[in-house]
Amino acid sequence: MQFNSVLDNLKTYEAGKPIELVVREYGIEAKDVIKLASNENPRGCSQKVIEAVREEATKMNLYPDDSMYELKEALAHKYNVSDKNIIIGSGSDQVIEFAIHAKANANTKVLIAGVTFAMYEIYTLQTGAKVLKTPSAQHNLKEMLELYKANSDISIVVLCLPNNPLGECVDTKDVYAFLDEIHPETLVIIDGAYQEYARFKDAAKKIEPSDIIAKYPNTIYTGTFSKAYGLGGMRCGYGIAQPEIIKALLKLRAPFNITNLTLKAAIVALRDQDFVDASVRENFEQMKAYEAFAKALGFRIIESYTNFIVLEFDARKNSGEIAQKLMEKGIIVRNLGSYGMNAIRVTIGTPEQNSRFFECFKTLYM
Amino acid sequence: MQFNSVLDNLKTYEAGKPIELVVREYGIEAKDVIKLASNENPRGCSQKVIEAVREEATKMNLYPDDSMYELKEALAHKYNVSDKNIIIGSGSDQVIEFAIHAKANANTKVLIAGVTFAMYEIYTLQTGAKVLKTPSAQHNLKEMLELYKANSDISIVVLCLPNNPLGECVDTKDVYAFLDEIHPETLVIIDGAYQEYARFKDAAKKIEPSDIIAKYPNTIYTGTFSKAYGLGGMRCGYGIAQPEIIKALLKLRAPFNITNLTLKAAIVALRDQDFVDASVRENFEQMKAYEAFAKALGFRIIESYTNFIVLEFDARKNSGEIAQKLMEKGIIVRNLGSYGMNAIRVTIGTPEQNSRFFECFKTLYM
Repeated sequence: MQFNSVLDNLKTYEAGKPIELVVREYGIEAKDVIKLASNENPRGCSQKVIEAVREEATKMNLYPDDSMYELKEALAHKYNVSDKNIIIGSGSDQVIEFAIHAKANANTKVLIAGVTFAMYEIYTLQTGAKVLKTPSAQHNLKEMLELYKANSDISIVVLCLPNNPLGECVDTKDVYAFLDEIHPETLVIIDGAYQEYARFKDAAKKIEPSDIIAKYPNTIYTGTFSKAYGLGGMRCGYGIAQPEIIKALLKLRAPFNITNLTLKAAIVALRDQDFVDASVRENFEQMKAYEAFAKALGFRIIESYTNFIVLEFDARKNSGEIAQKLMEKGIIVRNLGSYGMNAIRVTIGTPEQNSRFFECFKTLYM
Repeated sequence: MQFNSVLDNLKTYEAGKPIELVVREYGIEAKDVIKLASNENPRGCSQKVIEAVREEATKMNLYPDDSMYELKEALAHKYNVSDKNIIIGSGSDQVIEFAIHAKANANTKVLIAGVTFAMYEIYTLQTGAKVLKTPSAQHNLKEMLELYKANSDISIVVLCLPNNPLGECVDTKDVYAFLDEIHPETLVIIDGAYQEYARFKDAAKKIEPSDIIAKYPNTIYTGTFSKAYGLGGMRCGYGIAQPEIIKALLKLRAPFNITNLTLKAAIVALRDQDFVDASVRENFEQMKAYEAFAKALGFRIIESYTNFIVLEFDARKNSGEIAQKLMEKGIIVRNLGSYGMNAIRVTIGTPEQNSRFFECFKTLYM
């Protein structure tokens, strides 16, 4: 059967390997598998959220409140915006999907960093639009601006602040200077999935959604409950933008795009800021151990403003092989080979998980 | 800001009003509100599912197994197909979204019944394709075939068996005769969201996915956990088709399109067939009360093969007013006015809920 031609060029996203797969394929017991591949919160999530979800479990037969009134109110309060500035997605990547599908088409291009979140490209190709990447892997706003000025058919620019899967983060003042040069008809998506981490480490990286959308009405900020809030498995994210943009994106949102337990989890998670703060603090304490480890072993890292760290190898080592050998030992990390890099991305785990990683990695690397 | 022109003609789906809204807007206590508007299972869901989800709640930080290996295996076993015949969606409507987006485009048309599930039209308009509806509200395969033969640009036909929101169901032998006339390049979507009900009431309505996709490789069957399985709030459905179709649709599926609790819920739900059987049995016992009630009051109903029933009014009554008055009394039903009908759709509830509906309705109607 013939399908729409845009499908011909589509690749599917390669998700981090789940623990179940390592159990199945390598016969390692689930309790012995450590997953440092998908930037999940190693502390789990707030105990208050677990309790609320368990209580709500008797209502799984009921569709969620599709207006998402309570969650929008809570987010509006947190970010000092109105509920008309907010759209909820099944993960923030679904909001990014809506944004790209609403604006990009076969006659336009989407501009992204050389190595960044793979879904930007996939959503773009689904519309028939082309992807333009900077020569540099990490965000380089000078290169971005040059490409932007040279291509009048760019409809969207995506900035990942901080950037997944590399971990770097552009300073907010440089983002603002960049946005000054962007035409009001170009949509700029600011993916803040790891903003809780970046703004803790360095205030110069903090993006304030209410400020950026007021100053640049052509921007949409996206945030998520998947990382610092510890709810990756529950699929909840949000977009914050001017009502005009939100209205357009809502037309692409199917009803009930998150579960009723997700809705409850997100509402309660917003009330437990202590959990988030503790997670972020421990993350950077533990990251120091990775930095020291890398220095001791003499390989390069990219300074990270997130909950993961990228270890780069020289030509004598192959990242694919290292990732494979770690997996056979029950440690799942992300090989960045498919991004054209000889590197692995490792989620900062609990102290115990990190120690096991260091030990195991040393045996393989030395 | 300018968005893609297909958005101009898009309406947003009007979801059934949630209990929370009635609580907010009419000041009625949540415990006094009865929701008979969204065809949810009034028995809740299997107790085994509730227990499994509560246990899984400690893992909300972890992304689900994106291969959905265990769920696909369970569905493959149930339906006697291979896991390569299966795609999982956030509700079966997401699978329908993938199918329409994969095949329809601005140069084609999608053929549906006169009054049927509203999302078919919305997903179609998102692609720029046109919607063709039969003059009859209920499925009329003769009219469908005439329209099909008169329009060579039809890329998709959608059959809703049984049909939401009306409740009627075409005989399977007539569906097969219809499919004999359809070109192998036309995709036929068979929405079986309420099949558990239809096949219980009348074996002549039963669609066997393995049989229909073998005989007609241009068909995709979609099923859901939202109705008989009592998991509407968890958003899980599936498509069953030849691997060629599944592969194309998978290209439009974003990773982690269901939550990890949803995955667990669906897997455990499939193991408790007794819950489903009891739900379906009680549904039709209770439907008899609606039929008797309608007869006694002298208004028309459409014979239903689902878990809801449509009550049609003559010109002296207005369905919108009746639905509004019921809502003010804390009973939420679906007004079918937006479908051009002077009718309401009522989900078959528990015996207690139904008694309260009858009582309240009588006061309003007489």
